Amino acid sequence: MSSMWGKNIKISLFGESHGEAIGIVIDGLPAGLELDFDFIKGEMLRRAPGRSSISTPRREEDEIKILSGLFNGRTTGTPLCCIIQNENKKSTDYEKTKNILRPGHADYTGFVKYRGFNDYRGGGHFSGRLTAPLVFVGAIAKTILKKKGIIIGAHIKSIKDIEDKSFDCCNIEETMNFLKYKEFAVLDDEAGQKMKQAILDAKENGDSLGGIIEAAVVNVEAGLGSPFFDSVESKLSQLLFSIPAVKGVEFGEGFNITKMTGSEANDEFIIDNGKIKTKKNNNGGILGGITNGMPIVFRVAVKPTPSILKEQDTVDISLMQNVKLKVEGRHDACIVPRAVPVVEAVAAIGILDLLIEKDGYLWMT
Amino acid sequence: MSSMWGKNIKISLFGESHGEAIGIVIDGLPAGLELDFDFIKGEMLRRAPGRSSISTPRREEDEIKILSGLFNGRTTGTPLCCIIQNENKKSTDYEKTKNILRPGHADYTGFVKYRGFNDYRGGGHFSGRLTAPLVFVGAIAKTILKKKGIIIGAHIKSIKDIEDKSFDCCNIEETMNFLKYKEFAVLDDEAGQKMKQAILDAKENGDSLGGIIEAAVVNVEAGLGSPFFDSVESKLSQLLFSIPAVKGVEFGEGFNITKMTGSEANDEFIIDNGKIKTKKNNNGGILGGITNGMPIVFRVAVKPTPSILKEQDTVDISLMQNVKLKVEGRHDACIVPRAVPVVEAVAAIGILDLLIEKDGYLWMT
Amino acid sequence: MSSMWGKNIKISLFGESHGEAIGIVIDGLPAGLELDFDFIKGEMLRRAPGRSSISTPRREEDEIKILSGLFNGRTTGTPLCCIIQNENKKSTDYEKTKNILRPGHADYTGFVKYRGFNDYRGGGHFSGRLTAPLVFVGAIAKTILKKKGIIIGAHIKSIKDIEDKSFDCCNIEETMNFLKYKEFAVLDDEAGQKMKQAILDAKENGDSLGGIIEAAVVNVEAGLGSPFFDSVESKLSQLLFSIPAVKGVEFGEGFNITKMTGSEANDEFIIDNGKIKTKKNNNGGILGGITNGMPIVFRVAVKPTPSILKEQDTVDISLMQNVKLKVEGRHDACIVPRAVPVVEAVAAIGILDLLIEKDGYLWMT
Amino acid sequence: MSSMWGKNIKISLFGESHGEAIGIVIDGLPAGLELDFDFIKGEMLRRAPGRSSISTPRREEDEIKILSGLFNGRTTGTPLCCIIQNENKKSTDYEKTKNILRPGHADYTGFVKYRGFNDYRGGGHFSGRLTAPLVFVGAIAKTILKKKGIIIGAHIKSIKDIEDKSFDCCNIEETMNFLKYKEFAVLDDEAGQKMKQAILDAKENGDSLGGIIEAAVVNVEAGLGSPFFDSVESKLSQLLFSIPAVKGVEFGEGFNITKMTGSEANDEFIIDNGKIKTKKNNNGGILGGITNGMPIVFRVAVKPTPSILKEQDTVDISLMQNVKLKVEGRHDACIVPRAVPVVEAVAAIGILDLLIEKDGYLWMT
Repeated sequence: MSSMWGKNIKISLFGESHGEAIGIVIDGLPAGLELDFDFIKGEMLRRAPGRSSISTPRREEDEIKILSGLFNGRTTGTPLCCIIQNENKKSTDYEKTKNILRPGHADYTGFVKYRGFNDYRGGGHFSGRLTAPLVFVGAIAKTILKKKGIIIGAHIKSIKDIEDKSFDCCNIEETMNFLKYKEFAVLDDEAGQKMKQAILDAKENGDSLGGIIEAAVVNVEAGLGSPFFDSVESKLSQLLFSIPAVKGVEFGEGFNITKMTGSEANDEFIIDNGKIKTKKNNNGGILGGITNGMPIVFRVAVKPTPSILKEQDTVDISLMQNVKLKVEGRHDACIVPRAVPVVEAVAAIGILDLLIEKDGYLWMT
Repeated sequence: MSSMWGKNIKISLFGESHGEAIGIVIDGLPAGLELDFDFIKGEMLRRAPGRSSISTPRREEDEIKILSGLFNGRTTGTPLCCIIQNENKKSTDYEKTKNILRPGHADYTGFVKYRGFNDYRGGGHFSGRLTAPLVFVGAIAKTILKKKGIIIGAHIKSIKDIEDKSFDCCNIEETMNFLKYKEFAVLDDEAGQKMKQAILDAKENGDSLGGIIEAAVVNVEAGLGSPFFDSVESKLSQLLFSIPAVKGVEFGEGFNITKMTGSEANDEFIIDNGKIKTKKNNNGGILGGITNGMPIVFRVAVKPTPSILKEQDTVDISLMQNVKLKVEGRHDACIVPRAVPVVEAVAAIGILDLLIEKDGYLWMT
Repeated sequence: MSSMWGKNIKISLFGESHGEAIGIVIDGLPAGLELDFDFIKGEMLRRAPGRSSISTPRREEDEIKILSGLFNGRTTGTPLCCIIQNENKKSTDYEKTKNILRPGHADYTGFVKYRGFNDYRGGGHFSGRLTAPLVFVGAIAKTILKKKGIIIGAHIKSIKDIEDKSFDCCNIEETMNFLKYKEFAVLDDEAGQKMKQAILDAKENGDSLGGIIEAAVVNVEAGLGSPFFDSVESKLSQLLFSIPAVKGVEFGEGFNITKMTGSEANDEFIIDNGKIKTKKNNNGGILGGITNGMPIVFRVAVKPTPSILKEQDTVDISLMQNVKLKVEGRHDACIVPRAVPVVEAVAAIGILDLLIEKDGYLWMT
Repeated sequence: MSSMWGKNIKISLFGESHGEAIGIVIDGLPAGLELDFDFIKGEMLRRAPGRSSISTPRREEDEIKILSGLFNGRTTGTPLCCIIQNENKKSTDYEKTKNILRPGHADYTGFVKYRGFNDYRGGGHFSGRLTAPLVFVGAIAKTILKKKGIIIGAHIKSIKDIEDKSFDCCNIEETMNFLKYKEFAVLDDEAGQKMKQAILDAKENGDSLGGIIEAAVVNVEAGLGSPFFDSVESKLSQLLFSIPAVKGVEFGEGFNITKMTGSEANDEFIIDNGKIKTKKNNNGGILGGITNGMPIVFRVAVKPTPSILKEQDTVDISLMQNVKLKVEGRHDACIVPRAVPVVEAVAAIGILDLLIEKDGYLWMT
C-alpha cells in the first residue's frame, strides 16, 4: 500500500485514469533550480499517446500544471506538486464491462485488494497513464544529473523476436546523442522498420506485442549505491518493476552472464589515462551493488499490451460466471516505444536519489 | 548506505567476513512464536559451505547465538538479535593482496565508497557470508508463512548451459515436497549429475560457473502487494538484488513473455471449483503488482563466482599499476547451489512483509 | 527536508500560502470508506479564519477539491489527493517587505535553508494555512476512529495567564460531547469570556497572545504504540511539533509530574468491572510508550502570533542592515482557538497510524 | 513496533534487561572515523549505575564489545554493531512477582501488547538499561559534531521543586565547559546539595523523585531541519520521548512562552559582527522548525522512578485480583542525574542526522 517512494528525492504519486486529475508530489528537490519546460514537455511528448500510426489514436495533451514548489520560475525547495487534468475520457466504455475481468490486467487483483471499491475505469490507479507524472519527475531529475555530465538513454532492444543492435557497453555516450533525436528509438533503422510493421500487423490482427528496452546511464562516478538493500540494482529494480507491464530486469549481461565462465564474466581492471576502468562491462557498471564508473547498463522486459480485440475466456466477477470478452477501445498494440522514456525517467529518479545520498545537494544549483 | 530493510518486518544486517561476528536484528516479529531450531539449523546447513565435493572445503559452523527477543523458547515481540561468531578465519590470506583489486568483486567499489577504510578481508561486509543471517530470518519467515499454508521453494534451473526442467507454473506444490529433501536441488537428476560434473570440471580448471535459480511461492492468497513501489515484483526484486552475484530477476515468463503475442501471453481467467484462477501463469502469479492467487514464480540470474585461480589482469590501487592476479584460497567454483536457500529466504521475508501489510499479526501465533 | 510523514497512513503535504493551491496526498486509507463532507467541512470551518471578532477578517473559503482516490462517494484505497485553491491573496503586501525578516517567523531560517529561493509571500510553505489540509485528513481519521468508539477532543486550557478548568483525566467522554458544539472551546465559559476580552485587548494594542491547548483521546484500547521510537509520545509529539508555533508538548501531568514523589505520581492499578484500570491518570494513558486503556491526555504550548503591529527591531537581509518593522496586514491576535482543531487532527492521524499498526485495516469499513 | 530509527544515521536497538546482551546497530556512519574509547567509556560511566550514594548500588560495568564496522581502530562505513553483555542479573527477584503489575511501569502495557510473551524480568526491552547503547551512539555522534564545533550539554534544572539556575540562552558555551567535569550536573552547587539531600531523603522514605533536565546544543549553524515532520522539534522530541520516564519536552521558553505577549516573545533580529543573531532566544534556536544559529535549548520532564518501596495497590494479572505490592530490589530513588547523558546522547544523534541531511558526510573525517 504505497504509491510513495524515496529517501532523498521523495515522490508521492496519485490519480486514476478517469478521475479528476493525476499528479505527483516531489519532496527533496534543491531550491533555485530553473525548470526547462520545453525539455519537460518534450520528454512528456515522447510518452504521450496518439503521436504516430503505431500508437493509440487516443490523444492526451498531458498538460501539466504546477500547484506548488515553484516561484519565479525556480524551485523553492519545498514540495513541488504537478497535476495533469484528465480529459478526453470515455468512461462509459468501461461501465458496461466493469465486472468482466480483462485477462493480463489488474482488474481481478485490484478488485480483491480494494474489495470492489477501486475505480475500474481505464484501470484506475493501475493505468499506464500514471507513468506521465513519473516522466515529469524524470525530466527534472535528468536536468539535475546533466549538471554532473550524467546522461540517461534507452532504446528498443527488441519487439517480439525482432532485435535491434545492442549497446557497446563500454562506449555509449555518442550512441545516446544519436538516440536523442529519434522518434522511434532504435540503433538499427532497418530493424526499426520491421518492428513498426510487426506492430501494425499485430494491431490489424487484433493482437499485441511486447519487447525489451535497453537503457544506460553514462558518466556516473564510482561509489554510488550500497552493499545490500540500497544496492544500485535494488534501487533501480524497485522502480523499474513499478512500471506497469514490466516482468523482468537485468543488469550488464544479466541472464546471459550465467552462460559464461568466471574467466569470461569477470571484468578485468586496467588503468586507462590514469583512471581505473574495466576492459569489458559484463557487470553493467555495478559491482557489489555500487557503481564502478563504467556505464550502468540494464534491460527491461515489457509484456504485450493485455488489451486485445481477440476473444478471450474470462470471468464475470459479479455473476461468478465464465464469459467471453473482446476488449474494445483505443489501445496501443505495443506499449514498448512509449515505455522507453518511462524507463529513462525512473532510472533518472533512482540515480538522483543515490547521488544525493553520496554528495548532498550543494552541487546541484 | 543501508543494510536495514523493511516496513513491517524490519531487518538490520551487520558484520564483516573476518570481523568479530556477523548478525542481524529483526524487528516486528509476532510475540509468542516458538522457534524451531532444528528447522532453522537445517536451513542454514543448506547454505553453509564445506558440505560436498563441489563446495569450498572451508567449513563454517555458522553457529547462531540469540542475544535478545527470545524468552522461554518463544519470541517476545521485541527485536530479536542473532549473531554468528566468525571462526576459521585466514585473514593473512588477504593482507598481502589487499591493494590488488579482484575482478568481479567489490574491492574497487568498496574502496571508493568507503575511501579505503573498508575491511577488505574476505570481502568484508560484501561477503556472501552475510547471507547466513538472511537465511536465519528466512527460516523464521517460512515458519510463520507455513501457518497460512504458504510454501516457498527453489531449484537450480541451470548451471551454465545445462538446464533442469522448469516448474509447471500452475501446479508446483508437490514439486516443492519433492525438492524439500534433496541435497542438490534439481527436478531432473540426470541434469543434476551433469551440473555437478561441470562444476567439478570448472574447479579443476581453476575457473567458475554461474546459473539460474527458479523459485516459487505457493498458496499465497490474492490481494498482496500494491500498484507501484510496493508491488510484489518491486519488493522481491529489491531483496533478490541484495544477494551478492545476482544480476537478473524475472517474474512468470519474464524476458520470454516479450516473444509472445498478447493473446499468447494473457492468462485467461476461469472459475475452477468456485474459485477464480488463471488457465496459464505467464504472469507468475502477479498482475498489477498484486498477487492473483496463482503460484508466484520467478527466476534469478547468478553470475559465476568471481574468485578464480586463472591469471587475470588487474590493478594495484596503492601503486596505480597494472598487475596480474591469481585468486588463491578456498572458493566455491559455483555458488548457485548454496544460493538456493538464500533466494528462498529473502522471498520468504518479502512475502511475510506483504502479508503483515495486508492481514496484520494476529493470525501468526 | 520532508513534508511527508507516516508508516501506515502516509501523508504528503504541499503548497505555499500564496501559490496556486495547497493540498495533501493520503496513502493507506481503507477502500470503501464513505466520506462525510458535512463533517469534514465542519471541521475545516473550525480552523478557518474570519469567523469571529477575535479572528483575522481575512476570509478563506478553504474549499476542498478531491482529485483522486474517491469514486462514487467512497474511497478507492488508492492515494487520495485533496487540494484547496488559494484565493483572496494579497501578495503585494509581502513584496515590499520581502527582505525584512519578521521576528518570530521563519523568514530568516527559510531564507538560509532554501538559499533565498523560498516563496516568502505569507510565509510560503511555512504558513499556518498549511494546517488546513491536515484538518481535512484529521476529519477522515476521526471518522475512522469513531468506528472503534474513539473520540478526540481539545479545549483551550489557557490564554496567557487566564486558565480554563482542566480535564478530569479519568472521565472525559461527556466533556467531549460538551465541547463538540462549542464555538469557543472552553470548559468554563466565564474564563472563556476573559480570554476573548484579553485577545481583543491585545489586538487593540497591536500585540498578540499565546496559550495552551489540552487534548484527549478517549476509548483507546490498551496496547497501541511501542517501547522506543514509535512510542505514542514519540509519534504524537513528532506530529504536534509540526504545527507552526508549537513550542512544548507534555503527556499526562507532564512537567508537573516532576514535582511529585513516586508514590504520588504512580497510577495504581485496580480491577473495575472486570477490567484493569488505573485509579489516577498522571501518565496520560501511556506507560512505556504504549496505551494502557485510560484516556490519552496531553497539552500543547502555542506561542503568541509573531505578526504584531508594534514596531520591532530587525534586519534587512539584502542590505544586511538593522531596520525597524511593523507587521501590517490581517492577522490573528491569537492563533490558539483556531489551533484547537489542528491539534485534534494531527492526534487523530497519529492514533490512526498506531491503530492500523496493531489491528490492520479490516475493522475500518 | 519499532526499535529502529533514523534516516541518515540509522540505529537499531535490541536487548532485554536480563537477556543475554543488549546492543545497537548503527548504519550510516562515515568511514574512517577514529573512535575515542576513553571518551566513549567516560560518557557511558556518566550513565552507569552504582557510582554514588544517590544511585542504585547495582553496579553494571556496561563493557562494550564491537562486533562489526570497526577495522584497525576506524569505522569502515558499514554497520557498526556494539553489544553489552548482561551481568549481575538477579532474575529470580522478578520471577515471584511476574504477574503483579508494577504501577508506573510498562508491565501492564507490555503484557497486553506482547500478549504475555514479553520478558518481564527487570522491564525487559522497556528497561532503562537500554539507554546504555544510546549513550554509546551519542558519544560517537558528539565526536563527529565536535568537528563542526558543535557542543551538547545538559544540567539538572530541577529535582522535585528544588531549582538550579537556568542557562543564559544566548551564551551557553562556557557554561558547557563548566558542566563538563561535574559529577552532579548543576550550575548552582548549593541547589545541587539540596537536590542530593532530597534524593537521599526520598530513598530513606522508600519513595522517589523526578525532575527536569535542561539541555543545549551550541554552535549549530542556521538552516538545519524542515518546516513540518522533520522539524528540529519533531526530530528531537521523537527521540527524547523514547527515553523511558520522559513525559514532557519543550523548546526555548516552551510552556512559559504562552504567558508572554507577542512583543515579549518575539526574538528580534540584530546584526552582530556581520552576522544575523537574535537579541533573545525565547524560541530556543528554532524558527519554523529550522535552526537559526542561536543555541538550541530544550527541557525534558522526567517522572519519579516508579519503583518504590512503599506499599501500593495493584493487580495480579494472572488471578485478576487486586493485590498490594512493595517493589523490592535495588533502584535509583531518582533517575534524573543518570538521565542527563542520555538526553545529551539522543540530542546528539538527532542533530547529527539533520546535519548529514544538510551537508552530507564529507566534512566528517
